[in-house]
Amino acid sequence: MVRLARRPHGVPVADDFHIVSEDLRDLADGELLVGVEHVSLNPAMRNWIRAGEASSLPGLAVGELMRAEAVGRVLVSGDERYAPGDPVFGMFGVQELAIVAPKRVAPIDESLGPLSAHLGVLGLQGLSAYFGIHDIARVAPGETVVVSGAAGAVGSIAGQLATRRGGRTIGIVGGPQKAARIVDELGFAAAIDHRAGDVGGQLEALAPDGIDVVFDNVGGEVLDATLNQLAVGARVVLCGATSQYNADGPMRGPTNYFQLVHRRARMEGFLVMDHADRYGEGRIALGRMLAAGELRGPAQVLGTGIDEFPAALAALFGGDNFGKALLQVVP
Amino acid sequence: MVRLARRPHGVPVADDFHIVSEDLRDLADGELLVGVEHVSLNPAMRNWIRAGEASSLPGLAVGELMRAEAVGRVLVSGDERYAPGDPVFGMFGVQELAIVAPKRVAPIDESLGPLSAHLGVLGLQGLSAYFGIHDIARVAPGETVVVSGAAGAVGSIAGQLATRRGGRTIGIVGGPQKAARIVDELGFAAAIDHRAGDVGGQLEALAPDGIDVVFDNVGGEVLDATLNQLAVGARVVLCGATSQYNADGPMRGPTNYFQLVHRRARMEGFLVMDHADRYGEGRIALGRMLAAGELRGPAQVLGTGIDEFPAALAALFGGDNFGKALLQVVP
Repeated sequence: MVRLARRPHGVPVADDFHIVSEDLRDLADGELLVGVEHVSLNPAMRNWIRAGEASSLPGLAVGELMRAEAVGRVLVSGDERYAPGDPVFGMFGVQELAIVAPKRVAPIDESLGPLSAHLGVLGLQGLSAYFGIHDIARVAPGETVVVSGAAGAVGSIAGQLATRRGGRTIGIVGGPQKAARIVDELGFAAAIDHRAGDVGGQLEALAPDGIDVVFDNVGGEVLDATLNQLAVGARVVLCGATSQYNADGPMRGPTNYFQLVHRRARMEGFLVMDHADRYGEGRIALGRMLAAGELRGPAQVLGTGIDEFPAALAALFGGDNFGKALLQVVP
Repeated sequence: MVRLARRPHGVPVADDFHIVSEDLRDLADGELLVGVEHVSLNPAMRNWIRAGEASSLPGLAVGELMRAEAVGRVLVSGDERYAPGDPVFGMFGVQELAIVAPKRVAPIDESLGPLSAHLGVLGLQGLSAYFGIHDIARVAPGETVVVSGAAGAVGSIAGQLATRRGGRTIGIVGGPQKAARIVDELGFAAAIDHRAGDVGGQLEALAPDGIDVVFDNVGGEVLDATLNQLAVGARVVLCGATSQYNADGPMRGPTNYFQLVHRRARMEGFLVMDHADRYGEGRIALGRMLAAGELRGPAQVLGTGIDEFPAALAALFGGDNFGKALLQVVP
């Protein structure tokens, strides 16, 4: 299993984690033993291990098992609702075998998509895109939508959902390959490579009448550039701030926030957990779109085996992955 | 008249303006000659004279008449709708006599309050408070409301209106005198002196269950402190950013903006001009409250005569005034 060895500075490195083998304790009455198959690599992990309170979940203490969403199959069941072989989701952490109480586990409906998809397009990140676009942004036909982090787990889905609602969707990504792929494979109307510089100028050219909806996953300079190009009455939906998660000091606030006044616009945050009573609805809707070929759920395995977790997490922040980033636990 | 001599750095000083005497040109057909009585001193003036576009109005060129809202009386009328002696409002600028077209002038209803009140509680700043609290913040009974710049022209009215709607209103001001006065004279439930430091700690003590509505006039560190203490579902209404207007560089963005995600909160800007079709309604409502003694419209003359304009503007940014700041043009 992977334990937090110390608090990282900047992008996490190998020495920030201990990879240890520990004897498995006996199962208590009613518990399940789960064989973990895939672990979600999520930018929010960086917030879970930072000093101080910076997340909606409590921070991890040094020495604790590294927290992670994961999927796997039941190996031993002490609960009548689960049988060996059943696919399950839970906060199993970065480890090969997890002993968990049934109330900490959610069954997976494999008819909607494969196990690993339940960490991505059918998991909390896909659901964040679903509720963010449908309930918070409420994209209307003809609106110009800008999605930052558009090749990421949330952004790749959010952009496709915005387009499906009739939006003209512009994605902001890092690198020319990802820019090409979100247009070619995910149907974005246009892409901006922020590494090429002058995001503001590119936005002005692509959205000369202003941006109606920003779906922001990255914060920092990219958020500032979008704020400078808002249409009157725009909505800025805050989903993440990945560009800021590795900062040791305070986050960089949006210097251009006062454009919200000039443009009579609003900036709004949301948490997917507030929509937990509708996860089922969201998963079914997303599963149907996947089955009908109307939605893609790109994913990429960044490492195999828990030994590769630290390098895979660093690769996530390197930003070269396309779609949902995963650690495959068992080769 | 006062002309812009150069662009200020930081708080404007005397040399940033030329005070000049110029011969009055002849009136063209239909024009009015207005004797200006009071000029509004408004933090937004700083944005009108900065380099670059930083306001919802076009910036002033060096050499131009200093822009200002003002009230006065018609001296000579070339229009049948106005007679000499009629009280009028307009963007007359910082000068003693203004020649204006009738369409650039609004008649004043003196039954609602004296001329100078039409620059404050019955003017655009009072209307900003009115529409900001009623239409944007929509304060509900029992909500905890924090107003920054609470001794200012907008904040002093916004806080009273929030209390009238049943809110528990906490004002943030600079200095112990202003803190005492907003409680004693304006009926705020509590006051925080930001110069005493630890605004965050004071907010935590006064709003332990979180802030439901922030009505922000100042930006900067005070805005950041309020963001750290938001209740779930809070609304942050952006009205001004006076702490940032004198910065030569970019504004300081709210470092704690990501609390909008953790608290599922929203930050929204508005411009009073979007409610221009309802100015009449707002003025009548405010005038009735004034007449009934349910609302006070504090105001303070910071200088007399246009020679004193530069010093009066600097005094406004010194922050020692209480309520609406005015320049009295004629002694």
